[in-house]
Amino acid sequence: MSVKLFKNARIYTPRMGGAPAAGREQGKVSEFRDGCFLVENGRIAALGTRQEMGNALKGKSADKEFDLEGAAVIPGFVDPHTHACFAATRESEFSMRLAGVSYLDILKAGGGILSSVKKVRAASEDELFRFSRELLSNALRYGTTTIEIKSGYGLDVETELKMLRVIERLGKDTPQSVVATFMGAHAVPEEYKSNPDGYVALLTDEMLPSAARQGVAKFCDVFCEEGVFSVEQSRKILNRARELGFGLKIHADEVNDLGGAALAGELRAVSAEHLLAASDAGITALAEGGTVAVLLPATAYSLKKPFARARVMIERGVPVALATDLNPGSCFCPSMPFVFSLAVMLMNLTPEEALVGATLNAAWAIGAEKEAGSLEPGKRADFAALDGDSPAVLAYASGTRPIRSVWIAGERVD
Amino acid sequence: MSVKLFKNARIYTPRMGGAPAAGREQGKVSEFRDGCFLVENGRIAALGTRQEMGNALKGKSADKEFDLEGAAVIPGFVDPHTHACFAATRESEFSMRLAGVSYLDILKAGGGILSSVKKVRAASEDELFRFSRELLSNALRYGTTTIEIKSGYGLDVETELKMLRVIERLGKDTPQSVVATFMGAHAVPEEYKSNPDGYVALLTDEMLPSAARQGVAKFCDVFCEEGVFSVEQSRKILNRARELGFGLKIHADEVNDLGGAALAGELRAVSAEHLLAASDAGITALAEGGTVAVLLPATAYSLKKPFARARVMIERGVPVALATDLNPGSCFCPSMPFVFSLAVMLMNLTPEEALVGATLNAAWAIGAEKEAGSLEPGKRADFAALDGDSPAVLAYASGTRPIRSVWIAGERVD
Repeated sequence: MSVKLFKNARIYTPRMGGAPAAGREQGKVSEFRDGCFLVENGRIAALGTRQEMGNALKGKSADKEFDLEGAAVIPGFVDPHTHACFAATRESEFSMRLAGVSYLDILKAGGGILSSVKKVRAASEDELFRFSRELLSNALRYGTTTIEIKSGYGLDVETELKMLRVIERLGKDTPQSVVATFMGAHAVPEEYKSNPDGYVALLTDEMLPSAARQGVAKFCDVFCEEGVFSVEQSRKILNRARELGFGLKIHADEVNDLGGAALAGELRAVSAEHLLAASDAGITALAEGGTVAVLLPATAYSLKKPFARARVMIERGVPVALATDLNPGSCFCPSMPFVFSLAVMLMNLTPEEALVGATLNAAWAIGAEKEAGSLEPGKRADFAALDGDSPAVLAYASGTRPIRSVWIAGERVD
Repeated sequence: MSVKLFKNARIYTPRMGGAPAAGREQGKVSEFRDGCFLVENGRIAALGTRQEMGNALKGKSADKEFDLEGAAVIPGFVDPHTHACFAATRESEFSMRLAGVSYLDILKAGGGILSSVKKVRAASEDELFRFSRELLSNALRYGTTTIEIKSGYGLDVETELKMLRVIERLGKDTPQSVVATFMGAHAVPEEYKSNPDGYVALLTDEMLPSAARQGVAKFCDVFCEEGVFSVEQSRKILNRARELGFGLKIHADEVNDLGGAALAGELRAVSAEHLLAASDAGITALAEGGTVAVLLPATAYSLKKPFARARVMIERGVPVALATDLNPGSCFCPSMPFVFSLAVMLMNLTPEEALVGATLNAAWAIGAEKEAGSLEPGKRADFAALDGDSPAVLAYASGTRPIRSVWIAGERVD
């Protein structure tokens, strides 16, 4: 058995409760000045101030001691919403968008999500793995130790299953913990352009059962939006997913208030994503459904859109999580520190609320709350030592990487 | 003589004209696909597409060849406005500010600019140098190859001269080119609190002449703002500075439209800084005075203030430069890529306008235009190879560091 003692840390961590942290709980962070913690076989065995730990340490001898030199230490970031399995960036499309070219014209020029679909269908499993591994390696440098990755650039049975296999391999062959989400309902593929209900039938009758048999994906996500999947189609897909044992997620009210948040609340989905345009009624439905709002401020920033109404959500008791949305089109950013900064500076979250959003609530949003999201006995010793005195340094040093080191299961990984 | 050939680059560069790039010139960037350039003794000897360079290369043999592997190559960033000479961060003050504590209460708690003054006065020259060198080293990793640094945390003759000596040493002992600005008029020190005109007299009669004799500072900057220096006091200080041979800069209209921009135009100052609150009349005055507007979006972001009206300035013919404002209080950010991203995403500059602002116009703002700010024969071979196809990647990959390598005078420095 390996026993490690980490000392001289200023520990900041949310604490696990029976549900995602909502309302005033969102801003509750425990601080241990001159803190230390004991890691046994990759898990936290005890944690507290040096004084508190005096007793816990008696009779135990650590094989190795690590001095964190007074750095602020936080749980490793949990990024609960990414599309970090793709085969190429879409940088030139971004330039077109900045120049005011419409999405329709971008599609005509071969851009948009369907260009990613084309590349992912054409890529070998190895190519897709290698490109995506690089994305995860970047995320790791920014402190992300647990990451959700969606399929959804396949849009046919074969390629969706291929993506999920690659996502499974990423979980095995990178240091991070990876949670897979099936998102065949990310867009309607070209071949079903004139028959979207036919694609919904393919999803419910073939793709979802195949993904369920494969057993990699834990969640099913649907892009509920005008021109993509209607509320009715989304309900159909998600109900079928639930029958097959998937947890439910919805890309809801990103562009228009279609009622996606309300649907998420109605279905008691684990999470609803984006929510830029969510109405007051939608927000209330989320609170009632116990659904986590997964907000993606770097995407709003990258699309020059107004941010989701995070403060209203917190005030109404919706647990808020933060994620990057890492993808080739609307947000090519793997950095949770940047997301934290945007949440604090432009969405007016407190640093404590943002920390809970980027760790514990994010873990709840992907069913990882028992393993990750806080520094507590029994959980995996995933953490980041910051280049500062408190988590606020992530906003104080906005636009940079104020991280000294990143650790997973007590091993340094950056 | 050392001759180096850099090839396989996508070169993007503004081109030197007789004045800072204003109006439509602001967005003019030359692109050389499959570009290469020859560096002789640290300076660019020839530059163009591989085809164009065929002739230039005849009869010259390079000692060494470097393959830039198709990366977008831009001039090294010129950061024309920093306070990167200080002795400690002010992270806890930032947290207080986020929590809504007023600046007055922060001052009472020992924070604010005067806390930096206290620390800089107490620091030895070596301590100040070591702390500041670390700041410059961070800036270098983000591609800043030329940097302006202001004094102004001394506010007495002795400490201001000490700061300027440290800034001079930073220029000698770091890879970057450093331009020094005397900013004794950064704040009124405690000892002159009840006699600000006495401090103005100290500035004009002792500090400025001493700084002129010392010969390190090229520019004189004044913080023209309510509660700091009035327009009349600023005019007095700057007129004296001009007599003594300094170029003129003004922190103008950052918080209130006091008429600082108009004063900058009237005095034909080299640059006016911040300008968040500049009026239409002020903007017109800048255009008429040929004054460069140095905009600091990361500071507005960090202070949760509205951004300067960059588009209006460009439309009215004011040359716009971009800078970090790196300082311990209002903007602890050394990253020009982050500034570029904010300028494009939140101030609606095009990537080309932002590139000119962060290189050539920035060089003009600190009198470095003959050495830096563009990739042209005769200039120093300072450049960055980006992790993408065009400068737009700096916004596409917002919040990260999409830089493959940084070079000064043809030597790799990152």
